[in-house]
Amino acid sequence: MSDTVGRTDVAAAARAARVAARLLARLPRADKDRGLHAMAQGLLDAETEVLAANADDVSAAEADGTAAQLVDRLRLDHDRLSAMAAGLRKVADLPDPVGEVVRGVTLPNGLELRQRRVPLGVIGIIYEARPNVTADAAGLCLKAGNAVLLRGSGSAARTNAAIVAVLRDALSAADLPADAVTLLDASSRATATELMRARGLVDLVVPRGGAGLIRTVVEQSTVPVVETGVGNCHVYVDADADLDMARAIVLNAKTHRPSVCNAAESLLVHEAVADKFVPDVVALLRDHGVTVHGDEVFQAASADVLPVSDDDHATEFCALEMSARVVIDLDDALDHVARFGTGHTEAIVTGSLVAARRFTEGVDAAAVMVNASTRFTDGEEFGLGAEIGISTQKLHARGPMGLAELTTTTTVVTGDGHLR
Amino acid sequence: MSDTVGRTDVAAAARAARVAARLLARLPRADKDRGLHAMAQGLLDAETEVLAANADDVSAAEADGTAAQLVDRLRLDHDRLSAMAAGLRKVADLPDPVGEVVRGVTLPNGLELRQRRVPLGVIGIIYEARPNVTADAAGLCLKAGNAVLLRGSGSAARTNAAIVAVLRDALSAADLPADAVTLLDASSRATATELMRARGLVDLVVPRGGAGLIRTVVEQSTVPVVETGVGNCHVYVDADADLDMARAIVLNAKTHRPSVCNAAESLLVHEAVADKFVPDVVALLRDHGVTVHGDEVFQAASADVLPVSDDDHATEFCALEMSARVVIDLDDALDHVARFGTGHTEAIVTGSLVAARRFTEGVDAAAVMVNASTRFTDGEEFGLGAEIGISTQKLHARGPMGLAELTTTTTVVTGDGHLR
Repeated sequence: MSDTVGRTDVAAAARAARVAARLLARLPRADKDRGLHAMAQGLLDAETEVLAANADDVSAAEADGTAAQLVDRLRLDHDRLSAMAAGLRKVADLPDPVGEVVRGVTLPNGLELRQRRVPLGVIGIIYEARPNVTADAAGLCLKAGNAVLLRGSGSAARTNAAIVAVLRDALSAADLPADAVTLLDASSRATATELMRARGLVDLVVPRGGAGLIRTVVEQSTVPVVETGVGNCHVYVDADADLDMARAIVLNAKTHRPSVCNAAESLLVHEAVADKFVPDVVALLRDHGVTVHGDEVFQAASADVLPVSDDDHATEFCALEMSARVVIDLDDALDHVARFGTGHTEAIVTGSLVAARRFTEGVDAAAVMVNASTRFTDGEEFGLGAEIGISTQKLHARGPMGLAELTTTTTVVTGDGHLR
Repeated sequence: MSDTVGRTDVAAAARAARVAARLLARLPRADKDRGLHAMAQGLLDAETEVLAANADDVSAAEADGTAAQLVDRLRLDHDRLSAMAAGLRKVADLPDPVGEVVRGVTLPNGLELRQRRVPLGVIGIIYEARPNVTADAAGLCLKAGNAVLLRGSGSAARTNAAIVAVLRDALSAADLPADAVTLLDASSRATATELMRARGLVDLVVPRGGAGLIRTVVEQSTVPVVETGVGNCHVYVDADADLDMARAIVLNAKTHRPSVCNAAESLLVHEAVADKFVPDVVALLRDHGVTVHGDEVFQAASADVLPVSDDDHATEFCALEMSARVVIDLDDALDHVARFGTGHTEAIVTGSLVAARRFTEGVDAAAVMVNASTRFTDGEEFGLGAEIGISTQKLHARGPMGLAELTTTTTVVTGDGHLR
C-alpha cells in the first residue's frame, strides 16, 4: 500500500493543493455538490476496503494496549461509515458560502463596493484518532472551495489512507481535481511540523484534538491558526434560579456526553440557594455516577464529595467528574469564570433579567447560555448545518465554525475611471 | 521624565490593561465618546509640551543623520497635532461596533440565539516612526472597547510619551481607566518581543511598518497577529480598455502618493493595445518623474526605460518607480499577479464585462479595482470612517480594518430550561 500512506513532501503536496484550490475557487456550487455526492457514494461502495483497513488499525491499536475508549473512537462499522457518507450529502445540501456579498454599498463618489466571500485557499487539519474527521473536514473544505491537507494520527493511518483514496478517486471520476483532498504521512512528526511552517503555501491550520496538540500548534505554527476545543465550561446557579430547571441543566450539561468540549466541568452555586440546592444536586450527580470535587458546603452534603483544589477548578475532566463551589454573589461567579474559564461556553440559570444581563455581559466566552445546557454550543445546534470545530479564540472565528468561517472576503470596487 | 518613557514590564502592563479592558467592555457608547473628546481636547491644550517633546526627537534624529523623508514623518506641527485631535473626535462620531447583533435567529427548538460584537480585550500595536499612529490607534481601540499597548519606535519615544501622558490624563479626568492606553518602552527590543509572546494576556498584535517589522512579528508572535501593509499592487490594462482612462488611472495609482501601500508598483499591458498604449504611458510617467523598469516593448518606447528583472517585479518600490511588461492575454496577467502580487490591491482597466469578471474572480487579493485607481483601498474611502491598518492576510480581517475588525463576537443563547 505504498501509494496510500500519505504524502511525505509537505511543500510539494501544498503546491499541488494550491493548484487545485485555484480551480476550486471558480467552481459553481453544482460542481462542488456533484463532487460531494460522488465522495459519499464512493465511501458506501468501498465499505469492504475501508472497514478492512480500519480493522488493521484497530488490531494494531489493541496490540499496542491502547485504552478501550480510544480504540472505540478509532473503530468504524457499517453505521459509522454510512453516517460519514450521509454527512457529505448533508454538506452538499448546505448553501454555498462562496460569492455571498457580506457588504455592498455605493460610495459617495459613485464607486460600487462589493465585499464578497471567497475561499481561503489551502487548509491544513491536524487531528487525532477519529477517522470520521477525514471525510467531514474534506467535505466542508471542498464545499467552501478550499483544498485540504489532512494530517491525522498514526493510529488511524490505514483507515485515513483508505478513505482519502476513495475520496480522491471520486473527485477524479467527477472531473474535479483529486488534489482537493490530500493525506499527509502520519509516521513522523515532520509532516505536522512542516505543515505548520508552510506559510505562504497554506492559509489556515486547524488543530483538532487534546490540549497538548493545540498548544504545540499554537506555539510552533507560522501559518495562521484557529484554535479549537478546550472547554472548561461552568454552570452558575443564581439566587433567582428555578431549582428544578437548574438540576436538570446541571445533569444534562455534565452527563449527556461527558467526553466533549461543551460538557460542563464546574458548578457554581449562589449562597442564597446553597442550602436547598447543594444536597439535592450532589445526590442527583452521585446517582448518575459523577464524582464531585467540592468546597466545604458540598462536602457537608455528602461523604462522597472530594475536596476541591484550584487544579480541579482548572481541569477539563472530559469524564463523569466535576468541580463545585458556593459563590457569595454573581460577581464572585464572574471572577471565578474569569480565572478558570477557557472562553468556550458558560451558563447561568436564573429567573432574573438583571442577573442574566450582568452574566452575559460580564463573561468572556464564545457562547453564553441562559437557562439552557452548555451542550448546545455546536454547529449543528446553532443552525450552521455542520462544523469543522469550535473556536475558543477571538480572531476570525469564535464558537462553532461552519462553512462561512472557511472563507475570507475580497472587495471588488467598480468605477468608470475614478481617481483620487 | 522618568514616568513618561514607557513601561518596561510588559506582563505587568498587560495585566493592568486587562483590568481596564474588563471595565471598557461594559461602557456605553456615551462614556467612550466622552473619553475620546477629552483626549482630543487634551492634545490641543498640551500643544506646547507635545511639540517640545517632538522637537527633541526631531533634533536627535537629525543629529543621527536620519533620512529627511523619515524625519518628515516624525515631525509634528500645529496642523498635524490638530489633525490628530480631529481624528479622535471623528472616531467619537462613528457608531459603536460593540453590541451589534451580527446574527440573530430562533432555533427550531425555540432557543433564541444572538451573536453580538464584543471587544477583543487587549490589543498590542507595534509601529514605526509616525507619531499620529499613537493617537489614532488609541482612539480606535477605545471606541471598540479595547485597551491598547503601544510599542512605537525609539526615534519617536519622547513624542509618544508626551502624547500618551496627555491621553491618560484625559481618560482619568473623564473617570475612565488610564490603563486603557499604555506606552511600552522603546529603548530595547525586549518589550516588542515580550508583547508578541504575551499569549493569554494580549488578544491581538498588529504590526504597522515595513516588511521587515511585519515578518519579524509574524515569525515570533504567539499572540494572534493581523498582518498589515505590504502592497505590490498591479494595474492591468486590458485589450478592451479605454486608453485615456487607463493612462489617468496608471498615473494616479503610481504618483498620487507613491510611499503608501495602495500605490501601484507594476503595470501590465495586453499586447493588443501595447503599440498604442506603451509609448504614451511611458512618456506620461517620465514627465511625472517615474522611473520605469520595463520589458523589450517598454524599452523600445524610450531610452529612459531600464531593463526589468523578476526582482523588480517583486519589489514594492514605495517611490516614483515602477515595473512594467506586456502580457499576451488576461491569463498571462493573472499568472503574473499570482506570482508577484502580495494580496493587497489589483486593478483592471477594461470595457469588457467578461474580462472584468474573469479578473475579479481570478485574482487573490484583499481588493480588486475595476476602472478605478488602486489608491481607493483605504478605510476612509471604503466608508469605514477610519482604519487601524490594511490587512493583507485572509484570517479575521482582509483589507482596510475599521472598528468592527477590532471586535470579536459572543453568542448568547436563551432558553427556558432547554436540554439535549
